Amino acid sequence: MNNKYTLGMIGLGTMGRNLLLNMADHGFAVTGYDKDARMLQKLEEDGKAHHLKGFPVLADFIQSLELPRKVMLLVPAGQIVDSVIQELVPLLAKGDMIIDSGNSHFTDTSRRAAELDKQGIHFFGMGISGGEEGARFGPSMMPGGDKTAYNAVKPILEAVAAKVNGDPCVAYIGPGASGHFVKMVHNGIEYAIMQILAETYDMLKHGLGYNNEQIGNTFAKWDEGRLQCFLIEITKDVFKVKDPKSGGYLIDIIKDEAMSKGTGKWTSQVSMDLELPIPTIDEAVSARDLSKFKQLRIALNAALPHPAEQISNPQEFEAQLEEALYFAMITCYAQGFHLLSQASAAYQYDLHLQEISQIWRGGCIIRAALLEDIYQAYKKQPNLEHLYADAGIQHKLKEIIPGTRKVVGHAIQNGFAIPALASALTYFDSLRTANSPLNLTQAQRDFFGAHTFERTDEEGIFHADWNSNNL
Amino acid sequence: MNNKYTLGMIGLGTMGRNLLLNMADHGFAVTGYDKDARMLQKLEEDGKAHHLKGFPVLADFIQSLELPRKVMLLVPAGQIVDSVIQELVPLLAKGDMIIDSGNSHFTDTSRRAAELDKQGIHFFGMGISGGEEGARFGPSMMPGGDKTAYNAVKPILEAVAAKVNGDPCVAYIGPGASGHFVKMVHNGIEYAIMQILAETYDMLKHGLGYNNEQIGNTFAKWDEGRLQCFLIEITKDVFKVKDPKSGGYLIDIIKDEAMSKGTGKWTSQVSMDLELPIPTIDEAVSARDLSKFKQLRIALNAALPHPAEQISNPQEFEAQLEEALYFAMITCYAQGFHLLSQASAAYQYDLHLQEISQIWRGGCIIRAALLEDIYQAYKKQPNLEHLYADAGIQHKLKEIIPGTRKVVGHAIQNGFAIPALASALTYFDSLRTANSPLNLTQAQRDFFGAHTFERTDEEGIFHADWNSNNL
Repeated sequence: MNNKYTLGMIGLGTMGRNLLLNMADHGFAVTGYDKDARMLQKLEEDGKAHHLKGFPVLADFIQSLELPRKVMLLVPAGQIVDSVIQELVPLLAKGDMIIDSGNSHFTDTSRRAAELDKQGIHFFGMGISGGEEGARFGPSMMPGGDKTAYNAVKPILEAVAAKVNGDPCVAYIGPGASGHFVKMVHNGIEYAIMQILAETYDMLKHGLGYNNEQIGNTFAKWDEGRLQCFLIEITKDVFKVKDPKSGGYLIDIIKDEAMSKGTGKWTSQVSMDLELPIPTIDEAVSARDLSKFKQLRIALNAALPHPAEQISNPQEFEAQLEEALYFAMITCYAQGFHLLSQASAAYQYDLHLQEISQIWRGGCIIRAALLEDIYQAYKKQPNLEHLYADAGIQHKLKEIIPGTRKVVGHAIQNGFAIPALASALTYFDSLRTANSPLNLTQAQRDFFGAHTFERTDEEGIFHADWNSNNL
Repeated sequence: MNNKYTLGMIGLGTMGRNLLLNMADHGFAVTGYDKDARMLQKLEEDGKAHHLKGFPVLADFIQSLELPRKVMLLVPAGQIVDSVIQELVPLLAKGDMIIDSGNSHFTDTSRRAAELDKQGIHFFGMGISGGEEGARFGPSMMPGGDKTAYNAVKPILEAVAAKVNGDPCVAYIGPGASGHFVKMVHNGIEYAIMQILAETYDMLKHGLGYNNEQIGNTFAKWDEGRLQCFLIEITKDVFKVKDPKSGGYLIDIIKDEAMSKGTGKWTSQVSMDLELPIPTIDEAVSARDLSKFKQLRIALNAALPHPAEQISNPQEFEAQLEEALYFAMITCYAQGFHLLSQASAAYQYDLHLQEISQIWRGGCIIRAALLEDIYQAYKKQPNLEHLYADAGIQHKLKEIIPGTRKVVGHAIQNGFAIPALASALTYFDSLRTANSPLNLTQAQRDFFGAHTFERTDEEGIFHADWNSNNL
């Protein structure tokens, strides 16, 4: 019994291997399993300092773990998770724990938790963010579900997590599939911020005519201010990297067709089921899909060109661009947190938005200086309905909205494609419109489909005879 | 046998009753069934001229139909359709037909068709559009699936359908659930056009300061030109209707919180699965959801007001607004038809877009003069990749884009909430951008997640070591 391992990892790809190495760095006795011998070899090479070795046979791997067993999965989301669980269960004992740390859809996690609970296996879903580097040296982690299992691995998670002011970027998120849900929304926010950065890049390049060095320097400058965040940090570095083959900048030979793994799409689809608008995330999902129609874009560009005017005051425009980017970032988080609060009510997740903003401050892809402000906002008012309703955020908004309108207006006049930036601003304007024109929508629905309407002056459901009334 | 009915309708709500009356008008021997005695009574009252009577007992209803039986369902989509089918099947004989004419999700239709096929029952799904009036006097119908069943009811459908230039607004759409799929996309387009009309109303009211009479007159004027469509036709009438209670215009006392039945949401969700962007429809779905946050909107309006400047040249602005509305309408249809072409390939629906634009020209909620142009475009090029790629449409776009940019730019500067209009323009600009900035997105994905990228100068999948390369 003495030599048994505390935790075993199934799936030794980059993320699983790096997280395991991270655990070993912190003194935990861990091991891994992978069907692929090359992955086992890579683990052995990278984990030489810790004599870290994996198993090629699942049964041996399971037998090597101390009871109750803690088995973590880091395998591709979807069908593979189910097959791994199916192979695993006959080898486990009651009270053992499975922790799915991949990007599983939260509805799959709910289903699996219910199925495994019947078999006496503790199961919980955990989202991990931070990419390769994060997994290796400190990710942000979002565990949710079975609290027994969480408590059993809590010391490991807290040790390996990123730290902000000494606090680990991990906390129990809530019951059910809440961990995977929160990670999904994290990714939705990530999609939106990445799209806004792409649009900003476009205006720096084709609006201000900056070269790659100037673009990189601009992002570097911004990264020293209130915009500071991991995604801008890597963006500034992207523009430094040269391509050995062509001798030019690598960014210039990368195809402009963006791929995705589906978590952004899931966020948008779920938000529609919850009737909670996150249009800027939706536009980011669309923008990636649209980018793939390259031949169509080339043909339409030839047929429908739109030359941009020169910007009269580049310095002023660059400053306004920083404001627009900041505004859009606030809005991406606002939409994401709004979705979390709606999901918390709909699924009884009992989410603590203050804690979520806290664990997102470090380790994860969307870590940002702004999250400190968001954390403070939710700390002050845990039940804040919307980020825009916080006085501190409102103060920022008032300052940056005029510049944002200038940037979006310029892009609209000059044919720059800014779906996410424009959407952020129209979302803001929609939410600050006390009396919207959607009374017309209800009138139309009642007119053609007898779908009824409500009145502003009286409770109840009404239907009008639109065809005969005073016509 | 002599006195048996040709077709029986289950569900005698407004749509089912009106369609049945329409069939009776055309000389068909039809009957109906509803659990609700009041619905049977209403059918009897409205169908007095045809001695139209329904049945209160399902078995009697089924026995009254000639073989093979043709049973049409017009019941609320979802679980109810399944329960009705379950009750129905034991009473039917092999070779009988069930036609689901409600707004079922196309995946439900696929499932039901497969289940019923095993039991020897012909099943097909048919979308109907036209609202109450359409059902009564000529709807547009989109039947898909089992062709035996289609051919059996074809004479009835062609007789009761709306007619354009003598052609009935019904045609066999394709196999499987294609009929319900096409109807769903029809509704998605409808959501987007309705949202664009709401945004236009907002600018007429708060931008140009028009009163209801002026707004109604403007829509009436537009309805006589290239914008002519059913939705503007009813919109112009909406602004004439007075409220008996308050004495004012009815539109002014209707709550500005828009409801929906889900078909727009489905369209957006499916489009994301198909990776085919329809952002203006997405924004329309969002806008309805957002409208429901009324208290938040009131609070934010007080905290973050944005007074609009006066429009210097109202006549010019009104003309540009007409152009923006026309542009956005083209774009709504373009997105919908693009989705249809993608779905046709993905689901092997073998859709004929020319035929679909033809049957949408009359009877349905999105009928519009513009559909004649769309019909001509697909007639000329049945495999047209995108509506924007048609020379005739491009000619229109070139003419109306400058005015559209003025309107959207004005709204952006002045705080009008125009999510759908702005999205239509950013979609257009995205599609006419040959070199998009989403090479940055791929660079970022490769940087933090090793998700790889493609090169413009060489085939293959590449990964860069972003951290060490030249930094």
